Amino acid sequence: MYSEKVMDHFQHPRNMGEIEDASGVGTVGNAKCGDIMRIYLDIDDESHIIRDCKFKTFGCGAAVATSSMATEMVMGKTIEEAMEVTNKAVMEALDGLPPVKVHCSLLAEEAIHAALWDYAEKH
Amino acid sequence: MYSEKVMDHFQHPRNMGEIEDASGVGTVGNAKCGDIMRIYLDIDDESHIIRDCKFKTFGCGAAVATSSMATEMVMGKTIEEAMEVTNKAVMEALDGLPPVKVHCSLLAEEAIHAALWDYAEKH
Ligand code: FES
Repeated sequence: MYSEKVMDHFQHPRNMGEIEDASGVGTVGNAKCGDIMRIYLDIDDESHIIRDCKFKTFGCGAAVATSSMATEMVMGKTIEEAMEVTNKAVMEALDGLPPVKVHCSLLAEEAIHAALWDYAEKH
Repeated sequence: MYSEKVMDHFQHPRNMGEIEDASGVGTVGNAKCGDIMRIYLDIDDESHIIRDCKFKTFGCGAAVATSSMATEMVMGKTIEEAMEVTNKAVMEALDGLPPVKVHCSLLAEEAIHAALWDYAEKH
């Protein structure tokens, strides 16, 4: 049912946790299942490069795996580049997800966008 | 949104894992969100007491917390007593769950029943 990459990122999630005094924080909820996701970004004010990125979620394994992969994919990118990391790209990097779990994967993309907006609003 | 007990069992799940050569195994799926849950039981053939109980799930934090609590509640009980551990009792032991997450908590009860049936069918 799940690809090896999904199981790997579910069982050994990368970048799970919090960032104290984060430059941007985004919290989103999933209306379909009631789960929540929060992304923390540490952004360099000069270069606009994402130096660190962490996530916390109450969501399912698919939400954990996509957030783990998405945080890896935006790390080291500029804000502009990170805005272009789509949910589709994250799912492809994970070798796909069953259709019933696609809504879970949207949490990561939405929370990253929310965190980037949070940073932009403060500057 | 979540009680302290739910957060505790979500962040430090008890009895997560597998039992090799389990006496009974129950696997159930959640049609609403597509999640899966598996419960392993080690049952004493003489006394019918549950000596060990482990779970694995791809489900969300509510599924993890209820399974963690449910496995603790059936441990050391007889099959007959374990059949009477309801989803309602597990939720009460966790100081409740938001209504939108109640369907997630059903996975644990259903998987325990399935594992008890699996044992009964083999004997
Ligand atoms: S079912 Fe809610 S995040 Fe996957």
